[in-house]
Amino acid sequence: MLEHADEKRIENWIDGMNAFNSTPEFGTTRILFTEPELKNRVYVKEEMEKLGLQVTEDGIGNIFAVLKGSQPAMAPVWTGSHIDTVPNAGKFDGMAGVVCGMEALRLIKESGAPHKRNLAVVVYTSEEPTRFGLSCLGSRAMAGELKLEDAENLYDSEGKSLTQVLTELKYDLTEFPALRKQQGEVHAAVELHVEQNNRLEKGGETIGIVKKICAPSNYTVLVTGCQSHAGGTDMTDRRDAYAASCEMALLLEKLAKECRSEYNTATVGQVEVIPGAINVIPGLVRFSADIRDCNMETKQELIAAWKEGVEKIAGKRQVKVAITEENNDIPLTCDEEIVARLQKICEEKKLPFSFQISGPYHDTLFVGRFTKAAMLFVPSKNGISHSPEEWTDYAALAAGTDVLAQVLLELANE
Amino acid sequence: MLEHADEKRIENWIDGMNAFNSTPEFGTTRILFTEPELKNRVYVKEEMEKLGLQVTEDGIGNIFAVLKGSQPAMAPVWTGSHIDTVPNAGKFDGMAGVVCGMEALRLIKESGAPHKRNLAVVVYTSEEPTRFGLSCLGSRAMAGELKLEDAENLYDSEGKSLTQVLTELKYDLTEFPALRKQQGEVHAAVELHVEQNNRLEKGGETIGIVKKICAPSNYTVLVTGCQSHAGGTDMTDRRDAYAASCEMALLLEKLAKECRSEYNTATVGQVEVIPGAINVIPGLVRFSADIRDCNMETKQELIAAWKEGVEKIAGKRQVKVAITEENNDIPLTCDEEIVARLQKICEEKKLPFSFQISGPYHDTLFVGRFTKAAMLFVPSKNGISHSPEEWTDYAALAAGTDVLAQVLLELANE
Repeated sequence: MLEHADEKRIENWIDGMNAFNSTPEFGTTRILFTEPELKNRVYVKEEMEKLGLQVTEDGIGNIFAVLKGSQPAMAPVWTGSHIDTVPNAGKFDGMAGVVCGMEALRLIKESGAPHKRNLAVVVYTSEEPTRFGLSCLGSRAMAGELKLEDAENLYDSEGKSLTQVLTELKYDLTEFPALRKQQGEVHAAVELHVEQNNRLEKGGETIGIVKKICAPSNYTVLVTGCQSHAGGTDMTDRRDAYAASCEMALLLEKLAKECRSEYNTATVGQVEVIPGAINVIPGLVRFSADIRDCNMETKQELIAAWKEGVEKIAGKRQVKVAITEENNDIPLTCDEEIVARLQKICEEKKLPFSFQISGPYHDTLFVGRFTKAAMLFVPSKNGISHSPEEWTDYAALAAGTDVLAQVLLELANE
Repeated sequence: MLEHADEKRIENWIDGMNAFNSTPEFGTTRILFTEPELKNRVYVKEEMEKLGLQVTEDGIGNIFAVLKGSQPAMAPVWTGSHIDTVPNAGKFDGMAGVVCGMEALRLIKESGAPHKRNLAVVVYTSEEPTRFGLSCLGSRAMAGELKLEDAENLYDSEGKSLTQVLTELKYDLTEFPALRKQQGEVHAAVELHVEQNNRLEKGGETIGIVKKICAPSNYTVLVTGCQSHAGGTDMTDRRDAYAASCEMALLLEKLAKECRSEYNTATVGQVEVIPGAINVIPGLVRFSADIRDCNMETKQELIAAWKEGVEKIAGKRQVKVAITEENNDIPLTCDEEIVARLQKICEEKKLPFSFQISGPYHDTLFVGRFTKAAMLFVPSKNGISHSPEEWTDYAALAAGTDVLAQVLLELANE
């Protein structure tokens, strides 16, 4: 029998990580391999070592903290999440899964409960796409979907490639091919995460058991119109790249609202207007489109309809448009056996729960490519995430940790 | 009888100025009081002195190059324009008026034609609003519409005030109240400018005689929604500041297209999306609106209709909106006597001409507040301006200079 998780310990770790933050005045910003992120890595590894876990780091910076089982040659069971953030985010998204994973392993270790398989808390490198425009770098590499040549062609806003940054930080690029995990190499993986929606809160549930994870398709749209004088160009003669972009963004929103999938979203989050002067008609606009769906077929339908509409808008407004696909990921259906275990555990613990579809994707989307995987959610206050206002009660994190520890222990004895 | 203007001399001056440019790889960028702009001031003043003109500079950096008349106590006649640019602009907008003014004074001087009044080429400080968000700083100050306290409250993107910048450059702020020109202090002013539209080109005319100048009203719109996770927030639960801003921008375009004025425009040129991550719903958007009209009444009607629509959009989308008025300038009707003179000169010289309404505003908008004023246009190739593609043939600049020199000479003998 495992003890209850220690809320105070969870809170201390969350706040301990939050000390490493480049925008302490407005939420949490911790971008991959910037100073706060590197310092946080040191802190997290030290805390893992204090728990008696064996800590290693692979060639792309994924951190593994292992609690040895009685049969360490068997494929291990993983939990974990990420410690990087989007700009001006909250202190829970990602960090909660790492901290609760650490607490779960501590509970298992201190209980003395036997477990055959090794258990590991994994910190996946850069779940957020903030620095290199691509998400889930660490777990993607493990799934074989980020190869060395891909890493050479991923650039940050300063024009540095991912491989260049890894080399500067003394990561060994020759390890890159070995990052890929084969089927069977990992027995199972369960990630705890904050919900980033308000469905649990609305339903009064403590735990969300995730059945499907939506996957993102990301596009960069470049609209080229004609840069000209705001006062000198008749309204009828304009080829305004920004007005065209506004129509394209609103069309995407409209299509996503109409969609017949179980769950989908579409967002324009990044917009660059060039030259960006108040008295110049924009000649160039670059914007991002983030489209998510728990069903690959309906997602492709939406994307096709949007692209067709974008071309029509471009034709009507006499602007040129180029859409670059950054990624087009496949949604995940979580492992039914683990989902059933999570349900049973919640019922035994009398924790109110519901089944959920995850709009946000997580490292589990990629981990699920090479092992059976599932996720559990704890409630986000008002459903807000990727914002300084993000909040999850420590009591909920502790309850989630209790469920997580139990399922990990069971899986480690399979 | 005046000689014809020297095309080659005009071209050399245009290219001489264009050597001072912070984006030589993509058009011309010369922002107020940056290094290229300061160096260009030195170059222009040297060239003016080479012509034998008497050069002075006032407390806000307006440059005056005077050709003395036989009765120098009489109110002078002015010509001139500006030498700053928007980002990635062309090499003619503003510079053409300075250069042709210099050439006109050279023609008058070398002809030995008598003129009672002093003639001056004026370089007005910062016609473009690029650095301080407000246009026509020099001519606005002369019109009494930019006082010292206003200058203290104008900030550039680095947070420096105009007065701070002027002080650093050793301009004498105590001169500020004296910048204002009284009625009668200047006898008349005529500015030559590139058309920044393609009406002359379409009509096959060499000269445009401006009858009205549209005036800008500029607004900064701040839209506050709810920053949240792009995947985790249902389409129906969003308060997306960017989607709201797109609707507001498209509404402005629609209203401007419908307007019943003789000429109007509306443009969103500057857009800032915060936090600007591909997977975050924007919580904050700041954008500029530039609204111009040659009629103050129809302009106010359009602005009122737009503000009403913006509030409706904000209400519907549950975002907050704050509209700040940066300026709301009054259009100018050019002096009928000068317009008649320009028409007569074009007819005598057998230069094809048409009457025009200027969509772009110019320093003449403010100079016209304290003296009789008019403008003449020369054709812009394809109507393009505020763009690296901006072009005006040197032959057209020379023809414009011939008209300008003649009208200045006549006005200087009134």
